[in-house]
Amino acid sequence: MAEVKLIATTQSLFCARVEWALKLKGVEYEYLEDDLRNKSPLLLKYNPVHKKVPVLVHDGKPIAESYVILEYIDETWKQNPLLAQDPYERAMARFWARFVDDKCVLGAWQAACLAEGEEKIKAIESAQESLAFLEKQIEGKKYFGGEEIGFLDLAAGWIPLWLNVMEEVGGMKLLDAERFPFLHEWARNFMEIPLIRESIPPRDKLLDYFHASISYMRSLATNIQ
Amino acid sequence: MAEVKLIATTQSLFCARVEWALKLKGVEYEYLEDDLRNKSPLLLKYNPVHKKVPVLVHDGKPIAESYVILEYIDETWKQNPLLAQDPYERAMARFWARFVDDKCVLGAWQAACLAEGEEKIKAIESAQESLAFLEKQIEGKKYFGGEEIGFLDLAAGWIPLWLNVMEEVGGMKLLDAERFPFLHEWARNFMEIPLIRESIPPRDKLLDYFHASISYMRSLATNIQ
Repeated sequence: MAEVKLIATTQSLFCARVEWALKLKGVEYEYLEDDLRNKSPLLLKYNPVHKKVPVLVHDGKPIAESYVILEYIDETWKQNPLLAQDPYERAMARFWARFVDDKCVLGAWQAACLAEGEEKIKAIESAQESLAFLEKQIEGKKYFGGEEIGFLDLAAGWIPLWLNVMEEVGGMKLLDAERFPFLHEWARNFMEIPLIRESIPPRDKLLDYFHASISYMRSLATNIQ
Repeated sequence: MAEVKLIATTQSLFCARVEWALKLKGVEYEYLEDDLRNKSPLLLKYNPVHKKVPVLVHDGKPIAESYVILEYIDETWKQNPLLAQDPYERAMARFWARFVDDKCVLGAWQAACLAEGEEKIKAIESAQESLAFLEKQIEGKKYFGGEEIGFLDLAAGWIPLWLNVMEEVGGMKLLDAERFPFLHEWARNFMEIPLIRESIPPRDKLLDYFHASISYMRSLATNIQ
């Protein structure tokens, strides 16, 4: 049987989506927790370009970048497809997945890192404008993929837990329930899926990690000013 | 027959790769030149999220983001495949294509924008380190795709002309022939393909455009300081 390893860290939302995909496909794998402050020789060997998690290693061959890994998983293990057959639906899933990372994840993180003032208000508005595009995509559907979860659900899967934690450490509210009723409903549905619920990190550990990261980011910003 | 339109600008390297893909597939399309300083209502309608070119419109349905478009083209018109069948080869093409944009294009552009001094030297070194990863990928092969051009060749297709123009306006040399012999050889092979050579913008027009853009970027940087 093919040997599958996943080099990852528990707190990474990019790793979580790869784990969910492997579980959804029923692929057995060995989970190798890495320490980003003291990266393993294995990580440096298998992702010498970016030196980042996640890295999937299949029969000794490494693949990095979470969306590249998701496509690889979908093409290698065909059961429970992540992407639809239709080229246009596939294109839309890819487009919005990239949007999630470039605008929503980054926007929320930037808003969380800013301590206060006019800049923070602007960053919150900007992140909410991005989330409003996603809200339109999920309106009237159970999942982004339709009746079953798919590629874009895994991409957006950081929202129920990670976004919530970013909101807490950043002292802000991005996903206001009145403004984003459909994303709230989707988040509830998503978290009710047993394989998702069973493979998310403990909230208190994530909170500690994000508190430490934000303190560090803010100290850097203070030193630069 | 299906109606295909491409909203693009002549000077964009992201648009060029989409045009090449359409020509490689033999897909007839209507080319709609946009003006990024005065964006058309059509562009704003079809890419309200990013308001950027290229946008492919197929039977009235829009697709944005050059790599998302390339995958769509490859899945819709099967002749002359851009991506291999093998999932690992596909993953590698996607990984390196993303690397080209995130590191090489951005790195070269940043190096070109910096006027002089220590920062520019560092930016040049950093861009060359990224190009060195690409050099390793092409070593011993005619094209990144093997004997025929493929996805990654189109992704890297900005190198022979656009990178050369960036070097000139930035007063620097990135793709040194001694350090990067294989990329040089690849660039020569790539430009010998008739459909590529026949669909690149005039060098003098591109040079004017990049000179103007860089002056603007530098004036912004001066105002910020």
